[in-house]
Amino acid sequence: MKPQNRVIIENVTPEINGGKYPAKRVVGQYLNVTADIFADGHDVVKADICYKHESEKTWQLASLTALANDAWEGRFLVEKQGYYQFKLRGWIDHALNWQHGIEKKVKDGQRVHVELWDGVQYIKLLQKNKEANAVHKAYFAHLADIFENAKEDETKYNEAVKEALSSALHHIFEQYPYQQFVTEYENNLRVYVDRKKALFSTWYEFFPRSASREAGKHGTFKDCENLLPRVAEMGFDTLYFPPVHPIGMAHRKGKNNATVAQAGEVGSPWAIGGKEGGHKDLHPELGTLEDFKSLIKAAESYGIEIAMDYALQCSPDHPYVTEHPAWFKWRPDGTVQYAENPPKKYQDILPIYFETEDWKALWEELTSILLYWCEVGIKIFRVDNPHTKAFTFWEYAIAEVKKKYPDTLFLSEAFTRPRVTHELAKVGFTQAYTYYTWRNTKAELIQYMNELSQGAEKDFFRPNFWPNTPDINPYILQSGNEALMLIRYFMAATLSSNYGMYGPVYEFNVHAAMPGKEEYLDSEKYEVKLWDWEKQTKTSILIKLVNKARKENAALQETNNFVNCPISDDYLFGYYKQSQDGSNHILCAVNLDPHNRRGGTIQVPVGKLGIGANETYIVHDILTGNSYQWRGEYNYVELDPYFLPFHLFRIEKMR
Amino acid sequence: MKPQNRVIIENVTPEINGGKYPAKRVVGQYLNVTADIFADGHDVVKADICYKHESEKTWQLASLTALANDAWEGRFLVEKQGYYQFKLRGWIDHALNWQHGIEKKVKDGQRVHVELWDGVQYIKLLQKNKEANAVHKAYFAHLADIFENAKEDETKYNEAVKEALSSALHHIFEQYPYQQFVTEYENNLRVYVDRKKALFSTWYEFFPRSASREAGKHGTFKDCENLLPRVAEMGFDTLYFPPVHPIGMAHRKGKNNATVAQAGEVGSPWAIGGKEGGHKDLHPELGTLEDFKSLIKAAESYGIEIAMDYALQCSPDHPYVTEHPAWFKWRPDGTVQYAENPPKKYQDILPIYFETEDWKALWEELTSILLYWCEVGIKIFRVDNPHTKAFTFWEYAIAEVKKKYPDTLFLSEAFTRPRVTHELAKVGFTQAYTYYTWRNTKAELIQYMNELSQGAEKDFFRPNFWPNTPDINPYILQSGNEALMLIRYFMAATLSSNYGMYGPVYEFNVHAAMPGKEEYLDSEKYEVKLWDWEKQTKTSILIKLVNKARKENAALQETNNFVNCPISDDYLFGYYKQSQDGSNHILCAVNLDPHNRRGGTIQVPVGKLGIGANETYIVHDILTGNSYQWRGEYNYVELDPYFLPFHLFRIEKMR
Repeated sequence: MKPQNRVIIENVTPEINGGKYPAKRVVGQYLNVTADIFADGHDVVKADICYKHESEKTWQLASLTALANDAWEGRFLVEKQGYYQFKLRGWIDHALNWQHGIEKKVKDGQRVHVELWDGVQYIKLLQKNKEANAVHKAYFAHLADIFENAKEDETKYNEAVKEALSSALHHIFEQYPYQQFVTEYENNLRVYVDRKKALFSTWYEFFPRSASREAGKHGTFKDCENLLPRVAEMGFDTLYFPPVHPIGMAHRKGKNNATVAQAGEVGSPWAIGGKEGGHKDLHPELGTLEDFKSLIKAAESYGIEIAMDYALQCSPDHPYVTEHPAWFKWRPDGTVQYAENPPKKYQDILPIYFETEDWKALWEELTSILLYWCEVGIKIFRVDNPHTKAFTFWEYAIAEVKKKYPDTLFLSEAFTRPRVTHELAKVGFTQAYTYYTWRNTKAELIQYMNELSQGAEKDFFRPNFWPNTPDINPYILQSGNEALMLIRYFMAATLSSNYGMYGPVYEFNVHAAMPGKEEYLDSEKYEVKLWDWEKQTKTSILIKLVNKARKENAALQETNNFVNCPISDDYLFGYYKQSQDGSNHILCAVNLDPHNRRGGTIQVPVGKLGIGANETYIVHDILTGNSYQWRGEYNYVELDPYFLPFHLFRIEKMR
Repeated sequence: MKPQNRVIIENVTPEINGGKYPAKRVVGQYLNVTADIFADGHDVVKADICYKHESEKTWQLASLTALANDAWEGRFLVEKQGYYQFKLRGWIDHALNWQHGIEKKVKDGQRVHVELWDGVQYIKLLQKNKEANAVHKAYFAHLADIFENAKEDETKYNEAVKEALSSALHHIFEQYPYQQFVTEYENNLRVYVDRKKALFSTWYEFFPRSASREAGKHGTFKDCENLLPRVAEMGFDTLYFPPVHPIGMAHRKGKNNATVAQAGEVGSPWAIGGKEGGHKDLHPELGTLEDFKSLIKAAESYGIEIAMDYALQCSPDHPYVTEHPAWFKWRPDGTVQYAENPPKKYQDILPIYFETEDWKALWEELTSILLYWCEVGIKIFRVDNPHTKAFTFWEYAIAEVKKKYPDTLFLSEAFTRPRVTHELAKVGFTQAYTYYTWRNTKAELIQYMNELSQGAEKDFFRPNFWPNTPDINPYILQSGNEALMLIRYFMAATLSSNYGMYGPVYEFNVHAAMPGKEEYLDSEKYEVKLWDWEKQTKTSILIKLVNKARKENAALQETNNFVNCPISDDYLFGYYKQSQDGSNHILCAVNLDPHNRRGGTIQVPVGKLGIGANETYIVHDILTGNSYQWRGEYNYVELDPYFLPFHLFRIEKMR
């Protein structure tokens, strides 16, 4: 930057931690950029965005537009995976400023022959521009003549004024901008672009060992393969399994988290490692590596990706414990303290010691686990408790994997403090579990959705809404009220473009809880279950319909397009979503009261739809097939929880 | 930072443009620091602030305290002028974490002998600390023994538990912290400390050429000297003069901004430069350099500093125009466009060309003007229209001057767009004119005061409130209503610790305006005035009282301590201020309606005062001498604009 540079650029968004971390988008999305851009004085300021994909050499340009009070905005489309770099530039455009000055003086009735003459310098600059001069040679020569000689010749003066103020010349000035002292914003601005699934994914979770259709039989990868058509038919594209590795014997947990397991009890799959191996091995009862590869391949043919669990903890039997003692924190009595969050105890697992001096070998080995499974064919990892491992490790590991396998996605299981959750997203996690699981009232839901979609986190934190998980049987679902199960499911699937569910338990309405806790009674974490995979419930039928709607309506494939639609009832929650291209319009209305039919007036943001205040339009309920004719902003909805506690409307303009 | 570092520090305030610019304070103020600080997992995190003055080598420590959701806060006192650097540090404190873990387990009824044994490592570390061990040698040896042998000996176990949980040990751990992987926040954080006057100053402006007491006589520095007792008696500490340099003859302005001056007309003092010299010279009719020096010295003896006007523009007669043509932007007809903001025209001045290739010589010369007057004895500059000169220049010039004359203060005259005004403050201006001049309603005043005192600008932007200036005769004062004059004055002087007024016009209630404009009719900018300097008005008496109150009440010597006090009337505006040390409490109530007596209930923030909900206390009106006994939060005020439209209460607790 030269001392004569007069333009200031600051307060840029998205800029995460001063440019330390990239913003996030998926292929085909726009990156919206805002900044404050201004100069001293009153001269005309212009600004633009230069951007390029890491694989490209040439910068592309996107324009920035001035709003009120020196705020500017612009956007550009990201079309390739990987990093884009972008820069903001601003300059005083003396050519446009000259034009603007003449305009003001002419309006004020002043004679401007000196100003016209002064404009010759800008025409001369254009003449030096080979590209511009090739097209406009005669025009430029003419302008130079009339501007220079406007004083003597009244005809020339009048023509010169007309030309000086012409939009033709304005357009040429914009096309070949006068850029003398260009200020470039100094921070390193980047956006990391994932494949589309990072933003739009539909997860189903079950325990492979419960995949068998025979009582008393441990499920296998083959059994899982047989369930693929069912998962696909319901419309899921991601099938997530708890860990599929050998399970330790030492301190193995029994039914309902008993500290001593009975003979034959299977233990928690998160107690990874035993004599059969560790994180790179498969539990023998599930099958072989070949079986697993076959499952991955079969899933692919159904449009389903298998998501593995990446849980960085070890059963006391894990080979690491003897082979790499430096990776654990030993106490003077020769033991390692099992994982705990007092008074909670996880006797069957040892935490890994991330502060070890042997960190380099540890990090490389842990990363090699991910690379190993990527090689096998896995592209999605659900990461267990990432908030108890060093952020520096995640930044390293995720970057290493993405370098080689850029399609890889990481879902962070971090239901923890907001700053911690956000930091994990900043250092590289693609998606994250959220507090949705505990946001129940209308006010809570609106506040949380506004935070996610409009807060600073909107640019780096991609939510994935889960109404339940094997670890969380939320209080609101413990009654087993079917309407509540539907409501909590429906909102997860329509508020967030990424959502998931711990499936069989939800579909079949298993809801008994450990007394006073948000945990399942007789949790599948500690035992093999036999599910009736043929069974259809109201929930499973609706899942199928909602997942189909998600696939067919681009508005449901984003989260940050959430717009709250006020409804005149504290239990009625309405929201609107529009697809990026403006062609798809979804309106949802939910009755949060599972017991009573409720009605109210919903305020439709017709302005965003381009619908007039008195115009009529059709709202088509995708789930029931019913259509209604509405008019203008305020319309009536009524929802009966015993029939269906929500509307999923596609809005269709009548023009 | 090592890979094992687990603590994250981010979202630090004050941090201006990523640390590019310093925060601002004056000697004796605290710098409040906030940040988000956290680590993975649940271990105990500790953090502190290291700070030092630029002249010091040793870092001092200030503590940081955790609030909710990983937010932390701390503060340190700045005692010297110049730059302080500060750093934030955070670490996992394993010793405190060990103590905390034992506490949780003991509460849970667990036996902790292994944990006690494990604690020996922290005692050993303390033993290695010479300073700690010198004081606690026996204690440490005892602890090491009981912790190590707690398993075998029940008496030792019980004692070990007691000692492990003791606040004595906790205190020692805090005094000699366990700091293994300390994260240091990476951005360069600084605060620039000015002398106290930067925050607390009271300005009076008059034109020296109108200082004479004889009709038809051009005022002189000697006349100004004679007025010093008057200015001092009214309680002003800063006497600001419009430019005192030679005034150009070319295109000199006549009365009421006439484009042609009549013979003998004095012209605008802002049209600087003529055959008598330029910015380093004095207008001969005002007196000699010796006279000026004498005035500065005499003022000093009254506790008054003379503030000069630094106006970077040139009359066409200025020596620069011929000596340094490269500093002006010439047009092809051999003229320089006079300053203008179309349709406004300033025919008597030429703007300086900051984009010139000769920028270095230009900047040095312009800076040398400041240095010259500093040498003469000036320490305060009011800068004319800084928003029309490059920010880069201001950053350079102010830094250069402060290096040599650190006491120098710069007031920026920039009633312009918010971003521009803020940027001038960031690059170095000490104080700034504000929009106060146009904030009239209660809602506007509350919003503006909250912005100034709580917005991001609170750390770098110091407001100076002016109810009028020679350039601005605000619409609200054009009626000449005396109550309004008093109200607008009173709020300037009590809302903002820095305020100023274009004095004689205000005191003597001169209010006639150019029709339809916010300008004075027969403006003193273009003619010499004769003022009756003996005259006392209600306004001048109140000024004296208010200025005295400002000197005697530390709460009025800050601006960011503003707290709005709700009153049940849209025309009654209440606010509370507390001094930094908590000993001085000021409550103001203003009736914004100049025509009607109004009463209402004011909500006193008794919590901040340490006064109970039903406790009685005294509010003492400093202006009238009246005292009232109030009780609790809600109390009644009534204000008659024809008597006095405001209360200036000092709150006195009865204990």
